[in-house]
Order: sequence, then C-alpha cells, then structure tokens
Amino acid sequence: MAQQERAIATRRRLLMGAAEVFDERGYAAASINEIQERSGITKGAMYFHFKSKAEIANTVMAAQTEIPLEVRSPSGSPLQQVIDFTHVLAHRLRTDVLFRASIRLTVEQGTFQSDDSDMYDWWLLAFTRDLTRAQGAGELREEMSPEDVAASVVGSFTGIQMLSHVTCGRRDLHQRLACWWQQILPGIAMPDAAAEARPAGSPELDLSYET
Amino acid sequence: MAQQERAIATRRRLLMGAAEVFDERGYAAASINEIQERSGITKGAMYFHFKSKAEIANTVMAAQTEIPLEVRSPSGSPLQQVIDFTHVLAHRLRTDVLFRASIRLTVEQGTFQSDDSDMYDWWLLAFTRDLTRAQGAGELREEMSPEDVAASVVGSFTGIQMLSHVTCGRRDLHQRLACWWQQILPGIAMPDAAAEARPAGSPELDLSYET
Repeated sequence: MAQQERAIATRRRLLMGAAEVFDERGYAAASINEIQERSGITKGAMYFHFKSKAEIANTVMAAQTEIPLEVRSPSGSPLQQVIDFTHVLAHRLRTDVLFRASIRLTVEQGTFQSDDSDMYDWWLLAFTRDLTRAQGAGELREEMSPEDVAASVVGSFTGIQMLSHVTCGRRDLHQRLACWWQQILPGIAMPDAAAEARPAGSPELDLSYET
Repeated sequence: MAQQERAIATRRRLLMGAAEVFDERGYAAASINEIQERSGITKGAMYFHFKSKAEIANTVMAAQTEIPLEVRSPSGSPLQQVIDFTHVLAHRLRTDVLFRASIRLTVEQGTFQSDDSDMYDWWLLAFTRDLTRAQGAGELREEMSPEDVAASVVGSFTGIQMLSHVTCGRRDLHQRLACWWQQILPGIAMPDAAAEARPAGSPELDLSYET
C-alpha cells in the first residue's frame, strides 16, 4: 500500500472510531484517549491527522454533507424527491454510525462551538432549493414560501428523529416521518400533488424498513 | 427567616445557579464547582441539598413539568388552546433560564442517563390529552390519531426551537411556530376549525412578542 493510501486508511479508521465514541457519549463526554483506543491507531498517527477533539468533531460533522442529495424518485416529482430524501436520511440515521454521530454533534453544537449554524444553514439551503423546484412544478402551493417550508422540514425532522431516538431507539422513525408528511402535505401541497404523494416514501426506495 | 424557609431559599438559589450553568454549557461541560460559585452558596449547603450533578440536573429538568398546562384561550377552542400553549412554551424558552436549562438537559438526556424518555412521555401524554379534547369538540379531523398528532407537535416543537436557537438565538421562534401551525392545520383540523385557528396564538395571549 502506498504511503498516501495508508494515510487515507488511517484517517478513515480514526473517523470511524471517533464516530462510535461521539455517537455513544456526545461531544463533551468523549475523550480523545478513548477515540484513539477505539480506532486502534497510535497517538502519533492521531495527532498527525488532527490537532484536537474539536477538529475531529468538525470533520465527523462535515460527513453529513457528503450524502448524495439527488435521490432519483421514480415518479419524477420534485416534492416526492424531498419526501424520499427525508426517508434516506432516516435510514442513514438507523444504519450509519458516521452519519448518526455527525447529526448528534450538530444537535449538540452549542456545547463545543457557540452559535455556529453552518450545518443547519446548509440543510436549509438544500431543502429550499428542492422545494423551490417543487413549486416550479406546480406541486408546492403558490402562497407557501419555500424557505418557510424548508425551515419546518429541517426543524421537524431534527426533533422527530430525537424523539424517536429517545423513546424507542429510532425503531418508529420512518413511521413517525410518514405521519408527519401525511399531516403537513394538505397544507403545503396543491390538492393533486398531496393526493399523489407517498408520505412513507416511494415504494421503489429500497431502504429495508425493518424495525 | 425560619430554618425551613432558609433551606427553601438556598435550594432555589442553587437551582437558578445550576440552570444558568446548564443553559450555557450543557450537562457534560457544566462543573459542580461552577454551579456552586454561580449560586453563591457554600459547598456544605450544596451537598446538603444534592448529592451529585446528576441529581441537580434531574431537579432542573423536572422544573418543566411545573408550568401550568391550562392555558385559558379566550375562544374556548381546545385546538386553539394547544396552539396557544406552544407559544407559551416558546415564550418561556425566550425568557426563563430555568425552563431553558430544563429543555436543554432534556435534549441532551442521552449524555447523562441513557434511554430515559420520561420527560418526552410526559409531553406526549399532555398533548395527546388536549388533542383528544379537540377531536371531541369536532376540531381535529376524525381520521387523525391524537397520539400521532401529539408526536408531531412534540417532535416538531423540539426541533424548531433548536433550529431557531442555533440560527438566531430564538428571535424568530414565535414566527417559525406560527408558520408551522399554518402549514399543518389544513391536514389535521376540520376546515372550519383550521380557518378559525390563530397560528400565531390568540391575540389576547399577552406574551410580549418582542424580537
């Protein structure tokens, strides 16, 4: 293995170890020693890649922006694409420790860097863009502001996944999300679009909804 | 001041000092020394009242259940009462450090007691009861389950207040909440009830909506 490949592999092991520890303990209670032990790399290698716990946390947090935002919803409906994307995120939360740690750190953000809303702004922009497209396609009601709907989607998703996490380890997350879409669709979507939308996600979205 | 009154006053000072520290730093980063200094009481007095940081945090957290749940909405509509109550909570978050710390600790709960969902269960029950009343009054759609709507209200409120906190120090919280109610009312309420509801809260609810 070339030196550069080794460095990339080490960095990846470190991030995965850190993700496990942040996911279990949160930022403040995570120790850099435990991160080092969990990832099974030397202290020297760790400090070669990262100078501090905050730097590791920021890198784990940025992992959430690497999810492909383009979900190809079979119906071709931009509104359905937004719904499907929230189910993709839910699935990631249930199955991908790096994504889960990334979201937990974002939620706890106030504890290690005050008032940095970069991640939230990033999601708000992404959803505003997709909802603007849904409005252009005649799916989102004209009187709705895509920004306001995006704020509700981002805010509600954040809280609903937390509630599902605390009450049942996220077992009912897809179901909770589907209920929420069912409730909000008549208010935000044109009647035809609301009637055709699939609140539980496109059936073709193979996410293994096991509970 | 009688001895018992002094003990109550000391306990209150301790809780307020702890609330300030938890609100600023979160559970894990809060130190018991800082709580003691902030509340200006002796170490002996502190340990007389509480054995550990976790015990103080649990008491601060329980403070959220002491808010009077009965908001007398002038219209007499149970649905409006639910909407008004969310604005009362928003107002408390903006103005009451004890309540704010209590909610922050609930959000961070995973970091100091795993999988305890008591507080969330308490809110779910409270909203389910009020929404069941709204359904009895013909306001909530018959096909809606009050439990499912309560889960959306609790989840969405939790996340929307976090988003508002991170992006603008909760300055737009009432506005965000009003948008959310506006979006979700057509799906959960009968047409007449949705048309009559005030998403921004009853105008008579004097909450000083300064921003």
